[in-house]
Amino acid sequence: MRYSGLVGQSLVNAEVDVGDEIEVSKCDETYRGVLMPHHDFSDPAILTLKLSSGYNIGLKLEKDSKVRLVSKKHAKTAVERSMPVDTSKKRVAFLGTGGTIASYVDYRTGAVHPAKSAEELVFSVPELMDLCDVKARVLYSIYSENMEVSHWQELAKATADELNSGASGVIIPHGTDTMGFTSAALSFMLRGLTGPVVCVGSQRSSDRPSSDATMNLLAATRICVDTDLGEVVVVMHGDISDNFCSAHRGTKVRKMHSSRRDAFKSVNMSPLARIEGTKVTFAEEYAKRNKGPVTVFDKMNKRVSMLHFYPGFEPEHFDMIAGNVDGMVVAGTGLGHVSDRLIESIRGAVKKDVFVAVTTQCLQGAVNLNVYSTGRDMITAGAVPLGDMLPETAYVKLMWALGQTSDREEIEKIMLTNIAGEIAPRRSV
Amino acid sequence: MRYSGLVGQSLVNAEVDVGDEIEVSKCDETYRGVLMPHHDFSDPAILTLKLSSGYNIGLKLEKDSKVRLVSKKHAKTAVERSMPVDTSKKRVAFLGTGGTIASYVDYRTGAVHPAKSAEELVFSVPELMDLCDVKARVLYSIYSENMEVSHWQELAKATADELNSGASGVIIPHGTDTMGFTSAALSFMLRGLTGPVVCVGSQRSSDRPSSDATMNLLAATRICVDTDLGEVVVVMHGDISDNFCSAHRGTKVRKMHSSRRDAFKSVNMSPLARIEGTKVTFAEEYAKRNKGPVTVFDKMNKRVSMLHFYPGFEPEHFDMIAGNVDGMVVAGTGLGHVSDRLIESIRGAVKKDVFVAVTTQCLQGAVNLNVYSTGRDMITAGAVPLGDMLPETAYVKLMWALGQTSDREEIEKIMLTNIAGEIAPRRSV
Repeated sequence: MRYSGLVGQSLVNAEVDVGDEIEVSKCDETYRGVLMPHHDFSDPAILTLKLSSGYNIGLKLEKDSKVRLVSKKHAKTAVERSMPVDTSKKRVAFLGTGGTIASYVDYRTGAVHPAKSAEELVFSVPELMDLCDVKARVLYSIYSENMEVSHWQELAKATADELNSGASGVIIPHGTDTMGFTSAALSFMLRGLTGPVVCVGSQRSSDRPSSDATMNLLAATRICVDTDLGEVVVVMHGDISDNFCSAHRGTKVRKMHSSRRDAFKSVNMSPLARIEGTKVTFAEEYAKRNKGPVTVFDKMNKRVSMLHFYPGFEPEHFDMIAGNVDGMVVAGTGLGHVSDRLIESIRGAVKKDVFVAVTTQCLQGAVNLNVYSTGRDMITAGAVPLGDMLPETAYVKLMWALGQTSDREEIEKIMLTNIAGEIAPRRSV
Repeated sequence: MRYSGLVGQSLVNAEVDVGDEIEVSKCDETYRGVLMPHHDFSDPAILTLKLSSGYNIGLKLEKDSKVRLVSKKHAKTAVERSMPVDTSKKRVAFLGTGGTIASYVDYRTGAVHPAKSAEELVFSVPELMDLCDVKARVLYSIYSENMEVSHWQELAKATADELNSGASGVIIPHGTDTMGFTSAALSFMLRGLTGPVVCVGSQRSSDRPSSDATMNLLAATRICVDTDLGEVVVVMHGDISDNFCSAHRGTKVRKMHSSRRDAFKSVNMSPLARIEGTKVTFAEEYAKRNKGPVTVFDKMNKRVSMLHFYPGFEPEHFDMIAGNVDGMVVAGTGLGHVSDRLIESIRGAVKKDVFVAVTTQCLQGAVNLNVYSTGRDMITAGAVPLGDMLPETAYVKLMWALGQTSDREEIEKIMLTNIAGEIAPRRSV
């Protein structure tokens, strides 16, 4: 956790601690900023400096480089000290799960590694402590592509615990890859929310230039301390500049770009709210804080799979998977269609008590199996169309519905009932 | 193909033919418009009238309803007569495949059925004959969800035949559900295009109010007669009003809404061109008409599947499918990731000579397996990242690449070479 070698010695000589404002002179250039902590994965000869612009740079010290202390002003919040408790402010719980928002760049290789301490995360954004009484802990430190149902369950319980012990809101720093799945899972698992549950990520790690971590975390905190929201949301950049953040409903959000900072988009609705500076503006109806207590319904049946239809999809592949699951979400084309050949596979699966739900791979718009004969044949085969529900949300919800009951009619009723804003009221044809 | 019963008798009495302008009086209301042909699937007691607004209505005649001939002005282009040959205009070939653009609404049930005659399609848009010398034929009449590799192959050959016998362009009316797959397939199969190949669909059938069929067909025709384009494109509405159409590159287009008329979007680039009235404006670099002849490379290996990764994806399911194919396209999360558990399955598949390609389910943005350790592990396991290629395009291209060669290095080279605008130049890391 500490700098060593030439950097370590330079810092000791200059009586500089992590968090201090310093000046580094190197090759006729002088850099001023706050000394960031050394990361396990970084080259110990690289000093990380957070510039006043918010950008971080890595500096490789040479023998004639000079380090000078400017001020100790950030020292009070430095890492490796315990975080202050400030009961005059609202308490916000930070439940770390890993991901880019808690990751560090290895300056030797340019690669990104997950960090292991919530304090490091919070330290990198000391402004958080001006807004709330931070209570941070790390639940796990994994890339979100490795999240499993058991992680969602643990997260749901920990979230309920925090809210039930007085937190004004819960912020979940999370890898962006599967953040939309997690927000959907928490949306179904948690009832009677007494405050916002905010999944937040970043597309550039917090120690990198152009990181979106700080602004996203501050916006997430605003949602927790300044609003009466009682829903699970995802907060991320609303545009590619640093103009504003958007809060998306947890069941209606999807990562729609692999790298842009405004990668997350609400699908089939507007973002719930816009967070611009200190101002939060709601754009859609939302659920208010409940009186509580928060209850957890975290049972899930993992025997569910999701399949995207495409021309040439082999019914044999569908059958193989159908034989191994209790539920399938089909992402059909257009209004939810599959080929005639695949309809027979759906019929076969339904006969074997597999619940087959239908969504659209278009992502936007609703399925409607009443317009074309293909759709009507799918309904006759036993497929259940899920309106405008996202395929990913449908996948999570079907695991959850199958966890609550094994009665087919009851499962269908759950799937077609709007529980957490995941489905628009059914349209009559 | 003819009206019968009360409608048929009323039309005979009034000496009215399909295509004539008529007036229908019914229950104190009078409707004026052009008599549309009867469709096999429609109730014979329903008369279809195209109003001057372009909207079609269905009228159920009663015993006291009256039909009156206004003028014979549209009769020359009526259905059941042969289409005129006008060698003073450029010839455009229409190769019908089916879909909504060639579909009719059954007014009893509200359902949509495919039609079986190219003349019907062209008749519904007589303005086409003002723009070009129409040569129309129906290759097949199916919903596009039932398109298979063999249909693409037949279509590629027919398209090359038309261009090589002098057509200025080829227009392929097509169901919208899988039109993006077909346009990608034709993009890889056809070389040396002497003119545009335009896949065109509609989200509302041509005999329905608010149909986008007419405008899309006219815009497609403009591309064929007024430009020097030598690519496969998709032409559809550019917005939800009737303001303009967009021409999208065949390998970069995806249906992004289940029902809106502007459902098709270019992904990771702007639309190639905008067609507004008679004006075509190109917005991106494009391939020009080749001197020809057009050649066809239509071999494909159908033993390819596409899988979308999600949390909880069972490696066992991956393994089952991998055991049945020669190639797999993985649509990973974010930059192209899958879970650690699934990386072992990729390694196993590659060892068994399955070509595993990686794209992103975000759809927008490129994959990059060099940023996180997950990605690097996937590369070590043998996965091949495909830049900013759409998963659907990658699926089609992998079938095509495996159809050209079985040499692994050669396949990888083909997959990473930009053949039809499907992949942006590789970014260095």
